Amino acid sequence: MLTAEIIAIGSELLTPEKTDTNSLWLTGRLNEIGVEVKLKTIVGDDAARLEEAIADAVKRSDVIITTGGLGPTEDDITRRCSANAIGRELVYHEELEAHLRERFRLWGREMPEINKRQAYVIDGAEILPNPNGSAVGMLAKIDEKFLAVLPGPPRENQPMFDNYVFAKLKESAGNVIVKRRVLRVTGYGESAVDELIAPIYTSYQNLDTSILFTKSEIEVHLAARADSDGKASVVVEEVTKKILDVLGDAVFSTDNETMEQVLGKILTKRGLTISTAESCTGGLISRRLTEVPGSSKYFLEGVVSYSNEAKIRLLNIPSKTIEMHGAVSAETAEAMAKGMREVSGSDVALSVTGIAGPDGGTPEKPVGTVFIGYSDTHGEMSRKFLFPGDRYLIRWRSSQAALDYVRRRLLAAAKNA
Amino acid sequence: MLTAEIIAIGSELLTPEKTDTNSLWLTGRLNEIGVEVKLKTIVGDDAARLEEAIADAVKRSDVIITTGGLGPTEDDITRRCSANAIGRELVYHEELEAHLRERFRLWGREMPEINKRQAYVIDGAEILPNPNGSAVGMLAKIDEKFLAVLPGPPRENQPMFDNYVFAKLKESAGNVIVKRRVLRVTGYGESAVDELIAPIYTSYQNLDTSILFTKSEIEVHLAARADSDGKASVVVEEVTKKILDVLGDAVFSTDNETMEQVLGKILTKRGLTISTAESCTGGLISRRLTEVPGSSKYFLEGVVSYSNEAKIRLLNIPSKTIEMHGAVSAETAEAMAKGMREVSGSDVALSVTGIAGPDGGTPEKPVGTVFIGYSDTHGEMSRKFLFPGDRYLIRWRSSQAALDYVRRRLLAAAKNA
Repeated sequence: MLTAEIIAIGSELLTPEKTDTNSLWLTGRLNEIGVEVKLKTIVGDDAARLEEAIADAVKRSDVIITTGGLGPTEDDITRRCSANAIGRELVYHEELEAHLRERFRLWGREMPEINKRQAYVIDGAEILPNPNGSAVGMLAKIDEKFLAVLPGPPRENQPMFDNYVFAKLKESAGNVIVKRRVLRVTGYGESAVDELIAPIYTSYQNLDTSILFTKSEIEVHLAARADSDGKASVVVEEVTKKILDVLGDAVFSTDNETMEQVLGKILTKRGLTISTAESCTGGLISRRLTEVPGSSKYFLEGVVSYSNEAKIRLLNIPSKTIEMHGAVSAETAEAMAKGMREVSGSDVALSVTGIAGPDGGTPEKPVGTVFIGYSDTHGEMSRKFLFPGDRYLIRWRSSQAALDYVRRRLLAAAKNA
Repeated sequence: MLTAEIIAIGSELLTPEKTDTNSLWLTGRLNEIGVEVKLKTIVGDDAARLEEAIADAVKRSDVIITTGGLGPTEDDITRRCSANAIGRELVYHEELEAHLRERFRLWGREMPEINKRQAYVIDGAEILPNPNGSAVGMLAKIDEKFLAVLPGPPRENQPMFDNYVFAKLKESAGNVIVKRRVLRVTGYGESAVDELIAPIYTSYQNLDTSILFTKSEIEVHLAARADSDGKASVVVEEVTKKILDVLGDAVFSTDNETMEQVLGKILTKRGLTISTAESCTGGLISRRLTEVPGSSKYFLEGVVSYSNEAKIRLLNIPSKTIEMHGAVSAETAEAMAKGMREVSGSDVALSVTGIAGPDGGTPEKPVGTVFIGYSDTHGEMSRKFLFPGDRYLIRWRSSQAALDYVRRRLLAAAKNA
């Protein structure tokens, strides 16, 4: 398997505002042909560091791609540094200067003298034409290794890579095919997921697995390598099936979908409508549900009832329920879901009431205490959670747990039917 | 001037989908104290490359910050590699393991054995507490150089950096003072803002200005350098005042606050309450308003009325208003705001009705058509917008325009009072 490094060049990429994004596209193209990106470097207009970065990359990896730093101004140093890094000279190409002069003439301008720099190319490197800009690219071979020197703007480097670099790398990479899949898991911690599925993924040789924790879910990234599409797919399918056997319904998507997309699909498939009654999540759940295009087919309405008075008026909650059990209680959560379902006429309703903080916690009900309520034609149920984190995370985790609660109820109902 | 390198660790950062963004925030903080970021490296779960990257960085730069790779799973290798890179041992800390066990106990879970790894720390390094996660950070000094090893999640690494690393680097960086300010502007395009304020910022020598366009606002980043806090502050204040003279109320914050924070402050100051009636934004506006801690003091309630039936029932809109003008109209928007204010008893109410797409557009009302309604004791008003972008952007821009509409109404009322 060939390994690659990408080096992005430009001082603007070292500011608080900008980051390198060229490498994402390049990584996608490299991964397609089984070339793995092992390291990315972002370096400014600093000749010593750039030269060292390129030289180190050539030592470690099979494919090195640089982007940027090929313009005509003083601080564009990639040409010189890449030649130095591999111990070669820059060679002047008269036909490149003529071509540049012609380009400028077509734009109705005189070529500034500094643009002459763009007529120098690493000795022995292939010149990569650039129809979309003045800087040509270069492709140098160092023994079996490749150094591709590309301009920074995506509309210049992407066609250049596809037209002049991709096929050569593909040939050199052999016949490797990589199939990827992302499983999304909720309701487990990162280490619990890893303990449960490590025996599965470690038993495969040509499979890369990484486990990623985001604010309310675990992503399991699978990448299977094989010499054919069919073989790689078989591995991904097989591993997915084994993980599903172990984690069950906790895997809410095997296709990198969000929780709201998955729930929307289940509702659509079963022809059900939903409504939401939110307190501490403040509209986050309805916002997530309605983010999905076409959600108006199943999402009827939502209420954000912050005050007790609003809960009573909008959701017909008996005031004694709140008096007896408190606004943050299983009873109130269930009454909210019931009331919401009744006033909206939806098939199912969910509710959330809790304490997102930073204030409002008590010893009995600390910040993070959240009750999720659910209602359908069979009645109401609820579940208590205690979420760690700050206000933002507690709200997000509440929304995730609520959507997941409905998802699991509907899956259970389908199994029992 | 001290130089810094940032090393982001994690195989997910070498995929086509994800890139390192932690370094942007860190760069901002480092720049504030005159520390310049010279190189960034992104490395996966590859011990040899990571160790080399850290070792090289320590040779070249004064401050090295790593982010990520401190979790408990197999592929979290930062602890071991950073110790190796600087030729030190990892030392087991019994009290860290006890603390971890206690954290898990509080969550009602047993600590998985692999979490024990998180009790190992580089010999001689300061332990940086992490109230927001299980991985502690480390700060090692190598002669006059700093190696800070931070966890990956921003919610963990940012407070850790600010609480335990920033002051030490500031002291070491000497007396360069950089004062930054972020002005947030809405209602203008990027180039319009630049044309209006370029004559101001170009007249200062030691001022860096960058103008950044985000999904619904323009950020003007000012950074003034001087040898004293006072001098740098004077420049920032002066430039801010001049920009305010030119852009007026379009500048909604001179302190990098969100629109919902700014509106919350105005409501709090004036002792007013608010309620929201949303259609196409689906709860996004109430979600944003209630994201602010303490918002329960002014936010009374919200309704997400997707269907016409819900608009009529929940907001007492005359059904003939919708029949005559359509659900997406100035009349319906104003009726929604009026109804919301009346049923909730809030001082002001806002409403949004529009077409977020991808479906539902017509020649007269294409996707992106949005009406914002407003109601207070003086009556109702509304404004029509046509937002470009996809569903996500149209919804976001609608929420921003709605909050801004209320902000401007309240500012105008205060001026007229």
